[in-house]
Amino acid sequence: MTKPAIEIKLSKSKKQKPLAEQLEFGKVFTDHMFLADYLEGEGWSNHRIVPYEPLMLDPAATIFHYGQTVFEGMKAYLDKDGSVRLFRPEENMRRMNQSGERLCMPQFDVENALDALKQLIITDREWIPATEGTSLYIRPFMIATEPYLGVAPSKKYIFVIILSPVGSYYKEGIHPVKILVENEYVRAVAGGTGMAKTAGNYASGLRAQEIADRKGYSQVLWLDGVERKYIEEVGSMNVFFKINGEVITPALNGSILDGITRKSIIQLLNHWNVPVTERKISMEEIRSAQQEGTLEEAFGTGTAAVISPIGEFNWSDEKLVVNSGETGELSKKLYETLTGIQKGDLEDPFGWTFEVPDPAIV
Amino acid sequence: MTKPAIEIKLSKSKKQKPLAEQLEFGKVFTDHMFLADYLEGEGWSNHRIVPYEPLMLDPAATIFHYGQTVFEGMKAYLDKDGSVRLFRPEENMRRMNQSGERLCMPQFDVENALDALKQLIITDREWIPATEGTSLYIRPFMIATEPYLGVAPSKKYIFVIILSPVGSYYKEGIHPVKILVENEYVRAVAGGTGMAKTAGNYASGLRAQEIADRKGYSQVLWLDGVERKYIEEVGSMNVFFKINGEVITPALNGSILDGITRKSIIQLLNHWNVPVTERKISMEEIRSAQQEGTLEEAFGTGTAAVISPIGEFNWSDEKLVVNSGETGELSKKLYETLTGIQKGDLEDPFGWTFEVPDPAIV
Repeated sequence: MTKPAIEIKLSKSKKQKPLAEQLEFGKVFTDHMFLADYLEGEGWSNHRIVPYEPLMLDPAATIFHYGQTVFEGMKAYLDKDGSVRLFRPEENMRRMNQSGERLCMPQFDVENALDALKQLIITDREWIPATEGTSLYIRPFMIATEPYLGVAPSKKYIFVIILSPVGSYYKEGIHPVKILVENEYVRAVAGGTGMAKTAGNYASGLRAQEIADRKGYSQVLWLDGVERKYIEEVGSMNVFFKINGEVITPALNGSILDGITRKSIIQLLNHWNVPVTERKISMEEIRSAQQEGTLEEAFGTGTAAVISPIGEFNWSDEKLVVNSGETGELSKKLYETLTGIQKGDLEDPFGWTFEVPDPAIV
Repeated sequence: MTKPAIEIKLSKSKKQKPLAEQLEFGKVFTDHMFLADYLEGEGWSNHRIVPYEPLMLDPAATIFHYGQTVFEGMKAYLDKDGSVRLFRPEENMRRMNQSGERLCMPQFDVENALDALKQLIITDREWIPATEGTSLYIRPFMIATEPYLGVAPSKKYIFVIILSPVGSYYKEGIHPVKILVENEYVRAVAGGTGMAKTAGNYASGLRAQEIADRKGYSQVLWLDGVERKYIEEVGSMNVFFKINGEVITPALNGSILDGITRKSIIQLLNHWNVPVTERKISMEEIRSAQQEGTLEEAFGTGTAAVISPIGEFNWSDEKLVVNSGETGELSKKLYETLTGIQKGDLEDPFGWTFEVPDPAIV
């Protein structure tokens, strides 16, 4: 298969870039975006980089009514040598295809997606912030665009990549958050779409998050939809516990997202010979461990925060404090190692980083 | 509260209308659409009827990533007197607000929505097909449009109504369908969004429907996500069974849509003194009734088909034939009565129909 050529149409004007210290998450976008079109029977075509601009979609497009959409999130960092580093982007592109399969959407060739991403990053290279903790957030997504109100997989799609310079997740250093264990609402259930990175899972979680916010909690802890006992995810992150020296994370069961940070942490712990187990784990077990004093650490993992230490769980008004509400040693070490590898400050023994060289140098 | 004025901008050219006999479902749209804008803190504004045209949305709009969207579906019929009849449209608008609440979306005033709908129907009146079985399908929907990638309720929304002339659901008369009982995939679970008319529920169902199609079945029967025993819905319809003279439909449990056709059928059966019960009902019970010869009828209910008789269930390769695969007497009577009331051919003792008079006459 020959690689599709990417047509580039540059923006006539350049937007003003925000100051590094004013950067937030996902509010400002770069000058360009990548697009490709899919038509059933014909496949993908019209691979192009164009100025960042509104998408024009028929009001009857499937995306608005039946939610056929998948997305990914990753970050690019500028390293000391002026190269741009991505973290396991092929894993994201592969996962997007897995998500798409669940939603009856077409596959997008992983190599072509990486090429598109590289080209787009080179085009908008000057948007990558350089200050400590900042990065370029990358959002690839695919949406169904056929103007048809029948409930059926769309015959038309677009694949889009947009870029957003983002500030540091931890403006005042990594710190633990308080988590509300959710007993009423459910994020996903086995047989549903929980393992897919698709809009419906996020829409479904907003209500519980709003309630948690009001009560002064950062995120909700999702329990399984069947027994409401077993831990699934925290907010939109995977979750890990360190109990009596062993690290435990819920096993992938079909309703939990196969997180790339999750996967990397398991590899890192194996590499360090820290015992790590993927299995079912209940809130009962967490409470027992906390009461016995063996719950040493807890943390969420995801692209945005990398590691988000948990200082307290509220489970039906019972407060379970973890590690005196402080960031644990292992959480800190994992955070520093992963972000170090991502930014190119530490050696990458796993081949996780993907470099986009500075075209001015190459 | 004063009613918002609706600004009308007519289309300069009119599209060609399809021939009545060529009408399908949801593929052709009328010349105009209704739109209103929402901004947090300011509420709804800019109520307008404009030419049907693509929506322009920022690629970062919440709808594409986190699926904040709700919709409704209803039909308008032209009656013998040239009036347009809607069926319980206030129920749809109320339900859209209930769905929206689950998804952290703003409410849209029911009266204003009905006014908008009436105006839009008057504007595109000549698009309503008159042939037996045809109708004007109405699709109100609300989508989140704020360009922000944080997982949070959007601060901006649009409310849209589009219209589509549709053909008869039963081109060759009402006839029973074959249904595949779904054991692997789950549509929704208690604590999720099953009771809301939102995109994610439909996206989630596509995969199972695709498998059913391949096996030669029209729709899937959804079981509950917890025990995988109790019946929830069939395809995107509610479901009823007639067993030994009693009509039974799954009780609303949080994961089942509160269907307006469902509700109307219950009222109609009460009116006729036919015993009708809303309760949990398992596939085991359906199989026993079928084996004992007491499963008299089964049918799905929804806006598109009104009544869709079921002739066979396939449950783990066991085939359960209902009423020798024929349309039951009660199914037929319900279909004729409901469609008769909807089209104004029968008296409406319930006050269900809502008339939009011909402005040329009034």
